[in-house]
Amino acid sequence: MQTQLACVEQALGRFLPADAPAGLGEAMRYAVLDGGKRLRPLLVLAAAEAVGGHQPAALRAACAVELIHAYSLVHDDMPCMDNDVLRRGKPTVHVRFGQAQALLAGDALQALAFELLTPEDGVPAAMQAQLCRLLARAAGAEGMAGGQAIDLAHVGQRLTEDELRHMHRLKTGALLRASVEMGAACGAPAEAARTALSGYGAALGLAFQVVDDVLDVTQDSTTLGKTAGKDAASDKPTYVSLMGLERARAHAATLLHESLDQLAASGLPDTRALAALAGMVVHRTH
Amino acid sequence: MQTQLACVEQALGRFLPADAPAGLGEAMRYAVLDGGKRLRPLLVLAAAEAVGGHQPAALRAACAVELIHAYSLVHDDMPCMDNDVLRRGKPTVHVRFGQAQALLAGDALQALAFELLTPEDGVPAAMQAQLCRLLARAAGAEGMAGGQAIDLAHVGQRLTEDELRHMHRLKTGALLRASVEMGAACGAPAEAARTALSGYGAALGLAFQVVDDVLDVTQDSTTLGKTAGKDAASDKPTYVSLMGLERARAHAATLLHESLDQLAASGLPDTRALAALAGMVVHRTH
Repeated sequence: MQTQLACVEQALGRFLPADAPAGLGEAMRYAVLDGGKRLRPLLVLAAAEAVGGHQPAALRAACAVELIHAYSLVHDDMPCMDNDVLRRGKPTVHVRFGQAQALLAGDALQALAFELLTPEDGVPAAMQAQLCRLLARAAGAEGMAGGQAIDLAHVGQRLTEDELRHMHRLKTGALLRASVEMGAACGAPAEAARTALSGYGAALGLAFQVVDDVLDVTQDSTTLGKTAGKDAASDKPTYVSLMGLERARAHAATLLHESLDQLAASGLPDTRALAALAGMVVHRTH
Repeated sequence: MQTQLACVEQALGRFLPADAPAGLGEAMRYAVLDGGKRLRPLLVLAAAEAVGGHQPAALRAACAVELIHAYSLVHDDMPCMDNDVLRRGKPTVHVRFGQAQALLAGDALQALAFELLTPEDGVPAAMQAQLCRLLARAAGAEGMAGGQAIDLAHVGQRLTEDELRHMHRLKTGALLRASVEMGAACGAPAEAARTALSGYGAALGLAFQVVDDVLDVTQDSTTLGKTAGKDAASDKPTYVSLMGLERARAHAATLLHESLDQLAASGLPDTRALAALAGMVVHRTH
């Protein structure tokens, strides 16, 4: 996994503009480089590997997903949203570069994601189109942005477990699932394998959020690299507030098993990297 | 042109989500529908017509460009950017829905633009990829977002005419030019025709901004549907502040001729719709 991680870091450094106008490139690089677990890119690469996918396409898809994730953090941290000052152990982008530049850097990162997916050559056109399709849907109103809107609208409100799950399926789940689906789209797996990989991505996406909620109350800000205890402080509904710490932990374990079951059902010969990532998501400490 | 306009309005109404979560769809529709001259969509359709292009692709491209334009206005109007309260004669999105929702609606509109360009079927994959490529470049750090960053960085500063032109080539020019290029990409024009259409789009893009600067000082807010005199009030460099009103008007006329020369050089049999749009851009009163 270290090799893949190094590949992603290097590719991100190459794809991000060094000399975009008026400091914009600097803000974009700051938002993306030197930090982050790169879970989404690793999911793309592991899924592509599992289906014997097109490697240059997979690396571009891996970086594109990370750019979408990074832009969402930049915008989410802004004062009109979560108003957070710490991310990945550093001052957030708007603290460092000002709100206007943070807004633009986020916008430009989203555009760059789609630019990465559509090189002049080197990736088949049908694959480019499919990758754009998956990413656009996952990022938009029926995906990540929609989930954030639900989140915003429910601060201080009680949600049922179903409602909370629906919010997270969109807010963080859609992009995690899309990461797996985009990796799969770099190859040509059988329909059953594709469906199983989607199921793996969906279970993993929920597990990720449950663990996030657990870590928010059990870890400190230094370990997390972002402000801990934030959800409770801002009275946001979480899995922990809904089901308590122990049930939330047990739920994460169940979801891990579900994701591994899907891998077994995929019929793909080697899904070890995907299995390792699922374990990492659930057993991480930050 | 009325037919095309009606087509665009109807398609936008159909493509924009009515039921996206937590009011997000409502904010997105508010940002896009019932207003706007739809210049960019009309350029896409006129260019596609001139090259005998794929009609469903052209209509999707027309709507996608308008979504990018609309999202940029939503973000540009926010307090941390231009802090404007009036747009298309209505309260701006953040005034109506709050800043957080405005931020998300803009983000979701950008994603939706790329979703529109990549339908499951009905448009050839190579065309989908090419349209995404053109739009992503025009919207990003080397296009619209980059131009906005330059704009931000130079409030209260004097720019040379070259610097001002560079800023506008990115800020408004890149998307206008991309509109023409995307229309052309819906067909298969000869290389010379494609280059001439690009040149037409570039000249038109600059003309648009020069006229915008002229209107900002010669028209009132009611006529413009947005706050007039804003650039002068915020001490932004404009063509009028740089060259004076009369020379700015003459410059717009020169750019109009340049754009029409390019159409003549394209060798395309019928570029009347594109010519009419160029005239409309330069002779508009709002």
